[in-house]
Amino acid sequence: MEPELPEPEPLTTLIESLRCLPGVGLRSARRMAYHLLQHDLRGAEQLSHALATAVAGLRHCSRCNGFSEDDICVTCANPKRDPTLLCVVETPADQNMIESSHGYRGLYYVLMGRLAPLEGVGPQALQFDRLLERAADGVVREVILATNFTAEGETTAHYLAELLRSRGLAVSRLARGVPAGSELEYVDAGTIAWALMERRGA
Amino acid sequence: MEPELPEPEPLTTLIESLRCLPGVGLRSARRMAYHLLQHDLRGAEQLSHALATAVAGLRHCSRCNGFSEDDICVTCANPKRDPTLLCVVETPADQNMIESSHGYRGLYYVLMGRLAPLEGVGPQALQFDRLLERAADGVVREVILATNFTAEGETTAHYLAELLRSRGLAVSRLARGVPAGSELEYVDAGTIAWALMERRGA
Repeated sequence: MEPELPEPEPLTTLIESLRCLPGVGLRSARRMAYHLLQHDLRGAEQLSHALATAVAGLRHCSRCNGFSEDDICVTCANPKRDPTLLCVVETPADQNMIESSHGYRGLYYVLMGRLAPLEGVGPQALQFDRLLERAADGVVREVILATNFTAEGETTAHYLAELLRSRGLAVSRLARGVPAGSELEYVDAGTIAWALMERRGA
Repeated sequence: MEPELPEPEPLTTLIESLRCLPGVGLRSARRMAYHLLQHDLRGAEQLSHALATAVAGLRHCSRCNGFSEDDICVTCANPKRDPTLLCVVETPADQNMIESSHGYRGLYYVLMGRLAPLEGVGPQALQFDRLLERAADGVVREVILATNFTAEGETTAHYLAELLRSRGLAVSRLARGVPAGSELEYVDAGTIAWALMERRGA
């Protein structure tokens, strides 16, 4: 006797569709589908609606490349922002973090990724030409590179620094050093080395 | 200056909605949302549609309690199935595994869970009365308990065994023992102990 998969078509399709989420394989997708259908029908409906709304209503801000409902996002459209400063981040989540520090009043450019040659993500995929065009608007005077301090983020920063500097822009990078509130004994040696090298007058 | 969250409304809603998935917290939800919007708009649309279709089109089979598009699912409606055997499983995924073994030709009952007193999941939440009614249809002669061999699955099996036996039904449990193809040296001691206890004539 042929085995009968007890999964009706809509369930199979849902499980397959859930696998488009990053880090979700067949088993996780199945677990998620069962959970939604058994315990959270309302959540499933809301998610369905939120996905459709986001796909239909969101685009990239034509100035900063972040997600936006309008052609130009709220941050870029804010006249109180300092248009001479441009901070380059990898993702909107990084932009969130910088905003929450209350320490920045300039504008942003969101790369939506970082150089990762091993994954085939090069300058073209990240549309570096758009960033160069944005930075060369004649108003921006300094570009602050705030990519992550990982190997890929550092590579991206180095690469962008050369491109931007060759166009006559001032380029800076977030400071490296001992994190606020930390005890030296528990800071890793690499960080201490950086903090020594980049020490400043007290 | 007030920090400006660069997340427009549809994005915030999408991130919040993704958190209804089991095991997905704020950071994962944000990563998923960025991924879908940046790299897989088609996947997001498909997922939205699959969720809506599944929520609208799926219900519980009135006989086996599994997911079904119709009142009675394909397996329960199949006349070639042996209606005197009823196999009780925790989830449709378990039913899948049993079907794929090609070793069973009876019917199923899907609990959609297991007894877990610590999580507040008792006999009522699992609607054991529905199973008892199903098993007492006068046709079922043997109930095979195929809940997991975890603490909770075993508890569920013990509990159900008593209930069903008291109603005059034959009750069996999947055999415990050494897995097919395994070398004794690498099998855990608990399994060996069970296999010894339940040894059979060769």
